[in-house]
Amino acid sequence: MAKYAIGIDYGTESGRAVLVDVADGREVASAVHPYRDGVIDEALPGSDVPLPPDFALQNPDDYLDVLRATIPALLRESGAKAEDVIGVGTDFTACTMLPTDAAGTPLCRKPQWRDNPYAWVKIWKHHAAQPEANRLNATARERGEGWLPRYGGKISSEWLFPKIWETLNKAPQVYAAADRYVEAADWIVWQLTGQERRNSCTAGYKAIWSKREGYPPDDFFAALDPRLRHVVDEKLSRQIYPLGQRAGGLTAAMAELTGLLPGTAVPIGNVDAHVSVPAVTVVEPGRMVMIMGTSICHMLLGTEESMVEGMCGLVEDGIIPGYIGYEAGQSCVGDHFAWFVENCAPAAYQEEARARGLSLHQMLEEKAGRQRPGEHGLLALDWWNGNRSVLVDVELTGLLVGATLATRPEDIYRALIEATAYGTRVIVEAFEGSGVAVNELVACGGLPERNRLLMQIYSDVTGREIRVGATAQVGAFGSAMFAAVAAGRAAGGYDTIYEAAQRMARLKELVYWPNPAHKAIYDRLYAEYRVLHDYFGRGQNDVMKRLKALQKEVLAGSNRIPPAGAA
Amino acid sequence: MAKYAIGIDYGTESGRAVLVDVADGREVASAVHPYRDGVIDEALPGSDVPLPPDFALQNPDDYLDVLRATIPALLRESGAKAEDVIGVGTDFTACTMLPTDAAGTPLCRKPQWRDNPYAWVKIWKHHAAQPEANRLNATARERGEGWLPRYGGKISSEWLFPKIWETLNKAPQVYAAADRYVEAADWIVWQLTGQERRNSCTAGYKAIWSKREGYPPDDFFAALDPRLRHVVDEKLSRQIYPLGQRAGGLTAAMAELTGLLPGTAVPIGNVDAHVSVPAVTVVEPGRMVMIMGTSICHMLLGTEESMVEGMCGLVEDGIIPGYIGYEAGQSCVGDHFAWFVENCAPAAYQEEARARGLSLHQMLEEKAGRQRPGEHGLLALDWWNGNRSVLVDVELTGLLVGATLATRPEDIYRALIEATAYGTRVIVEAFEGSGVAVNELVACGGLPERNRLLMQIYSDVTGREIRVGATAQVGAFGSAMFAAVAAGRAAGGYDTIYEAAQRMARLKELVYWPNPAHKAIYDRLYAEYRVLHDYFGRGQNDVMKRLKALQKEVLAGSNRIPPAGAA
Repeated sequence: MAKYAIGIDYGTESGRAVLVDVADGREVASAVHPYRDGVIDEALPGSDVPLPPDFALQNPDDYLDVLRATIPALLRESGAKAEDVIGVGTDFTACTMLPTDAAGTPLCRKPQWRDNPYAWVKIWKHHAAQPEANRLNATARERGEGWLPRYGGKISSEWLFPKIWETLNKAPQVYAAADRYVEAADWIVWQLTGQERRNSCTAGYKAIWSKREGYPPDDFFAALDPRLRHVVDEKLSRQIYPLGQRAGGLTAAMAELTGLLPGTAVPIGNVDAHVSVPAVTVVEPGRMVMIMGTSICHMLLGTEESMVEGMCGLVEDGIIPGYIGYEAGQSCVGDHFAWFVENCAPAAYQEEARARGLSLHQMLEEKAGRQRPGEHGLLALDWWNGNRSVLVDVELTGLLVGATLATRPEDIYRALIEATAYGTRVIVEAFEGSGVAVNELVACGGLPERNRLLMQIYSDVTGREIRVGATAQVGAFGSAMFAAVAAGRAAGGYDTIYEAAQRMARLKELVYWPNPAHKAIYDRLYAEYRVLHDYFGRGQNDVMKRLKALQKEVLAGSNRIPPAGAA
Repeated sequence: MAKYAIGIDYGTESGRAVLVDVADGREVASAVHPYRDGVIDEALPGSDVPLPPDFALQNPDDYLDVLRATIPALLRESGAKAEDVIGVGTDFTACTMLPTDAAGTPLCRKPQWRDNPYAWVKIWKHHAAQPEANRLNATARERGEGWLPRYGGKISSEWLFPKIWETLNKAPQVYAAADRYVEAADWIVWQLTGQERRNSCTAGYKAIWSKREGYPPDDFFAALDPRLRHVVDEKLSRQIYPLGQRAGGLTAAMAELTGLLPGTAVPIGNVDAHVSVPAVTVVEPGRMVMIMGTSICHMLLGTEESMVEGMCGLVEDGIIPGYIGYEAGQSCVGDHFAWFVENCAPAAYQEEARARGLSLHQMLEEKAGRQRPGEHGLLALDWWNGNRSVLVDVELTGLLVGATLATRPEDIYRALIEATAYGTRVIVEAFEGSGVAVNELVACGGLPERNRLLMQIYSDVTGREIRVGATAQVGAFGSAMFAAVAAGRAAGGYDTIYEAAQRMARLKELVYWPNPAHKAIYDRLYAEYRVLHDYFGRGQNDVMKRLKALQKEVLAGSNRIPPAGAA
């Protein structure tokens, strides 16, 4: 009798679920459920009151609706019986966090807090805590906190403590009312199992926790704000659970909601990027996983804790038990091409694409693909949305050099693709320069499915073989693997994620090999990229920052419309 | 009885003619005739053989067609009688040159040379003589040639001797067959009058001639190539005629062709930019004329010979008799915006413009005009077509810095306008730094007619008042003024160009004044521009040149460039 595991990937706009045959990783059924309230960035549901700038919230009840909608759909579609589903695993965006009472009930569900934006889920791209992040970083640097290098020298405003501190500053009454601050990744597991089980991944990558040292000491938090001295003990928990463990079994209520059996195994919560690593067969060092979409997350396993410039974080057991998990990132990849197509592709191209039944991306890829490396004469710095790794600087901006009157849209398009590939090579070299091997790249996410030219360029630029994960639902698939591990061999699953990876995960047969002639040209272009990267990115010429500062100054001083006939 | 003068301006795509009332400069009639063969840059007329890269040719018979088409049209439209037309003057793009036999017949008109591209007119933007220009400059520098500083230290590949030498190298049989190499400006006068009368303007600005020293010595040419030792005596002429003189009278054949009377006064040939100076009232130092179209020519009069960095040339009597004429230039201005609109304006913008009955330029100007200086956060180097003044380097390319995902098309459009204004400010400062005053700017050409935002930005960036010439046909108008001078007072014209300027030329009432608040912001942005200008333009980082070199290398190695005719 076949055994199945269900994985649910909680994304930014929807939840995606997949039902997988545990024996061989076959994807038997899938389902998607968009969040009713989506990303809440203009006004709270049912309200006209505008939210402050940089807010990005969610409604936690939308997460429960995903369970209610998708799991019965998977069972219907597959014909699988509840007793054959041995586990249900979840992964989430992070840091996506919410305040709850002691029982795990979200404050935003309570009438007295419903109208307060700070009582809702702040999702990963909520960016209103930048002032708190800046002060936290300054304090950590002054105190010489030993954990700072593990995060590339900078804590992001997207992470847990800036978000908590922002609430303390802006809505102290909400902070006071919250018994717990919890990652959504852990909250959903709490709902499924009735157990508060905080996972080592979000704790490590987003909450400055490490297996050896735990959280920063209380006096660090007190140095930020005396009211934060006991934030860990008052609002979090020092008990952190490693990935791959069983968090508990499905509660009766959740069995009722989903149609699964009570007691069905649920693993410790996990994060979308991190759960993708074993889903594309990677459970060992040397193979860097690139989750490629609007941005790229670079995930890598290592055996020793090496300080690598500009990492988003390094966490022991943070991806796969037994290894140091490294995370790096590029903040603007797919977004880059989308910006270009929206803002720079001329009408003639749109008409041609329409006439030929292609998307603009497809047509630009086709035209750009006819060129040889170096042919367009352009070079770009891929910093349209700042630089995540290795410079960790949101104030950096994009640059294009080499334009002539003969420059065509496909030239710029290709130059932008190449720029993001150079950005990845910088990250690869940062790892290798710190002694962390990167022998092969394994890609997953939306971009590898859509753009073969891009994949070949990444291979040529990095000089590395690139393989592509077989599943199109990489997050949900990885969660299903962890569900099979939580269930264990006795129940028809696996005892370790290594076994699950071996049996369930697969790569496509397609392999991108670096073309040595292209590589040789890209080596020369990359050398140019590095010079500009350092000139504009490491303080030789801070023109990008000065332009941004001037822009802010001008916008702050104007109502944008100058007086008529200004003269 | 009213007396009229006709001026004909030979441009890149067409000839434009105007019939002017000599007494007050009233433009009575105008006509345009596009060249049938246009700019020949893909294949010779009637041929499929691709031309080599960087070729830009013309058919000299198209110049005669302009006479045949426009002059009768002017007479018809105005009702003027042939006997009331006292002169017909011409101006041309330069260096636009052709090989002829001893009688002035173009070699390309002869069957045996018709299929050879080197027998045709090479127009100003023919750029295939760069290797020859490079060697000429290196030799001149080695020998410490005293004339080199008069040209900003560099002879352009667009000028006469590189173009002649290119033919000698690539098609020695054409060089041998040519009795004369002649500027089209002089060739058309030769056709009109039957007299070979070489003008001091093209000789001075494009052929290294000066009133005091003549041409470089024969041993300089021999140092370039022994076969060139006697190039001046064999292919040119040492007899050079000053501007404003009468070259001769219309031949009977040309009277027949045009409908004018035989003997009608024809002035010495002139150049479009130079003839424009008196056409906008400027016959004295301190007022810089900007002829603003696809590129900008900056023309300025001075009383002493000052060496100014990156000038295109300084020539005694080169613009107005009695003054040193300075010429500087920016190679990419209107071309810049045209490139942007064609290659970068998205379909949504085109639809909006169409719906609102605006051109894309108008709509982009409107949107860009709503911004304050500094608001878009961008900075560009306006080198899409290299840099003429002050760096004199065609290998430089365009740069844009400051792009983010929020950057909109109008932001880039405005940044490109501003970049060209910074480029003009660099030129103004180079003059003033060498002691040549620039107190006021006088603009003419197509751009000032079309783009008020651009004019205001130029005023704000340079901190100078800008006035605009009244005539929309500035080249043809200036040629008509010189025609009136060639005819002389006795025939109803004028004895000097000063008188003609006083009586015929006019400015618009519109004046652009610098806005001090905008100027203050642009001072900061200009400081950033200067840093990037020097970093990329003065050898600190030659990435632009290396990208171009790589591009050529890649293209040379591919099958994209047809071998025919190349090298």
